[in-house]
Amino acid sequence: MAFPRLNQLGTALQAAGLDALALNPGPSLAYLTGLHFHISERPVVVFFTPDREPVIVLPELEMLKVTDLPMKAFAYAEDPTAWEGVFRQAAESLGLDGRQVGVEPRAMRLLEFRHLQAGLPEADFPDAAGVVSSLRVRKDAGEVAAMRKAVQIAQAALQAAIPLIKVGMSEKDLAAELVVQLLRGGSQSEMPFSPIVSGGSNSANPHATPTDRALRPGDLLVIDWGAAVDGYVSDLTRTFAVGEVDAEYRGIHQVVLEANAAGRAAARPGAPCADVDLAARTVIEKAGYGAFFTHRTGHGLGMEGHEEPYMRGDNRLPLEPGMTFTVEPGIYLPGRNGVRIEDDMVVTANGAESLSDMPRELRLVG
Amino acid sequence: MAFPRLNQLGTALQAAGLDALALNPGPSLAYLTGLHFHISERPVVVFFTPDREPVIVLPELEMLKVTDLPMKAFAYAEDPTAWEGVFRQAAESLGLDGRQVGVEPRAMRLLEFRHLQAGLPEADFPDAAGVVSSLRVRKDAGEVAAMRKAVQIAQAALQAAIPLIKVGMSEKDLAAELVVQLLRGGSQSEMPFSPIVSGGSNSANPHATPTDRALRPGDLLVIDWGAAVDGYVSDLTRTFAVGEVDAEYRGIHQVVLEANAAGRAAARPGAPCADVDLAARTVIEKAGYGAFFTHRTGHGLGMEGHEEPYMRGDNRLPLEPGMTFTVEPGIYLPGRNGVRIEDDMVVTANGAESLSDMPRELRLVG
Repeated sequence: MAFPRLNQLGTALQAAGLDALALNPGPSLAYLTGLHFHISERPVVVFFTPDREPVIVLPELEMLKVTDLPMKAFAYAEDPTAWEGVFRQAAESLGLDGRQVGVEPRAMRLLEFRHLQAGLPEADFPDAAGVVSSLRVRKDAGEVAAMRKAVQIAQAALQAAIPLIKVGMSEKDLAAELVVQLLRGGSQSEMPFSPIVSGGSNSANPHATPTDRALRPGDLLVIDWGAAVDGYVSDLTRTFAVGEVDAEYRGIHQVVLEANAAGRAAARPGAPCADVDLAARTVIEKAGYGAFFTHRTGHGLGMEGHEEPYMRGDNRLPLEPGMTFTVEPGIYLPGRNGVRIEDDMVVTANGAESLSDMPRELRLVG
Repeated sequence: MAFPRLNQLGTALQAAGLDALALNPGPSLAYLTGLHFHISERPVVVFFTPDREPVIVLPELEMLKVTDLPMKAFAYAEDPTAWEGVFRQAAESLGLDGRQVGVEPRAMRLLEFRHLQAGLPEADFPDAAGVVSSLRVRKDAGEVAAMRKAVQIAQAALQAAIPLIKVGMSEKDLAAELVVQLLRGGSQSEMPFSPIVSGGSNSANPHATPTDRALRPGDLLVIDWGAAVDGYVSDLTRTFAVGEVDAEYRGIHQVVLEANAAGRAAARPGAPCADVDLAARTVIEKAGYGAFFTHRTGHGLGMEGHEEPYMRGDNRLPLEPGMTFTVEPGIYLPGRNGVRIEDDMVVTANGAESLSDMPRELRLVG
């Protein structure tokens, strides 16, 4: 088995002026090689160069994963004092000391990095987050198909869970039911994030974790959830009303609904990411709630729950066909209630398509 | 709300000669403060000193999580170019530049570390993994109770899944069913690892990921799974026979069963961790399969799936009451079949107790 994406990687490495890229396990390694490892106390690093076979450092007990792959393996035993020497051998086999060895700061831990430094005491380790990201950011048809399926599984799972929502149910219990439906529907069990289920004052926290708080009449209920298919994820949010809610809450829901539509409509090839943010934010600011929309409008989506490109007001990156990202404006009234509506977009040749189509209007539950 | 564990931390920091500890989100931060954050592209760091309030650097949109806590917060907005300055302000508020600021290499990413370095250009960042670990390694009664419940939920979930196991079922489908049972039984949905379900030749890979391979008559079937309760996990393994299996496979199962019992029996206060490894390993070596037991006998368990103390032949650390760890010997015949039997132990005043009691004998399924 060859690694078809390594040609592109070699070109990207040379364009970035890098002699090599050192990756620990994570989405970029999976993208390039299909290899998955649990992050653990045993460091795993793969070195990629523009013109030679990849070199991997890994524990002996993981050797079966790579024996049939076109990469050179340096395996270490259980005693950690010997690991540094194995890293040095691997690095020397590629002659990388004193060279430019790019790393991904968001993925690599100090554990791997300090082993790298010990093995390559004279090398530089510049931030190379953009190298694999520049390949991953434009999804091919197979990747979009996996994301589309992940959206469909997520939507069907929430649809199945909605009838179970009752006043008095805890956020945690609803989150667990939703996960059960996601798994029954075919989502991978390893997901990048667990559902956010937040009611009432908790819904005013955009990154809430489900609690034992019971749903009460008059609550807004924010559900932010997703599924994973073949390593690609969906990430959606809908907001519900637990029985009748105050007119102001219906009002902010309507504002966010219009902001979501404006953000989605602004996405097209050539438009800078900032335009998507601006379009959604302007709707909320004009309604007088700008101070309560405390985050960017969206983030890229694919093998990770958050990745490039980011829909931020300062991001001039132009959108290109195949880019996938969320549009998720929100209004959060601290201590009271919050609203968020999130869809998953893919940029097409002429515009952009929402992979998600579940109704966005405020629905009464409970 | 105060943080009751910070007194102990202050003492441990001073004993280690550290002026401060810098943690990113993860188990140690949760242990000390109860704070949970998703690891994301937005760095979060908390500084602990022996004598002052903790200081946290975090995104503005996470501020609600800390407003009622006794810590000083430095929040940053969405534009990453401003983050370095906020880290510098936070570090300066504690006068930490040029000092010894411990870090946890297994938890901290280069993302946080490079922001730390930028904020504290003259500081040293020694490996302080042992500091919080030295507190976490002895579980109190509440922690053991959570682990006991996590074991019970895991055992009940597998018991409920066993009748579903059929020849022709894929590893992935069985893993998904098991996760459904775990969640229905009350496990938290955020678990440190997904179940390993590996049949036939896949069972010979100790760290297999569930595949589409269908179970066949004559397979050994390794199931390595766990649950999470209040942030504490269980981690168990049982091996099954899919219909009748070769006599050699029944034989290696019996050897591993005896190795598991010997490892469990060796655990007591004062015994070095190495004794547990040696006891289990000797059984397998005497049976002639020493070369096929390719990993240590166990690892510590608690808030993480793998933590201190490690049951390795070179680990002279003496066991103490409250330490919790796995005993999980295995025999892996490459390309053929494998066996592992794993239990979760807690060291008591006079010996050690297995939190898990599900039958370990080879059971026929399918």
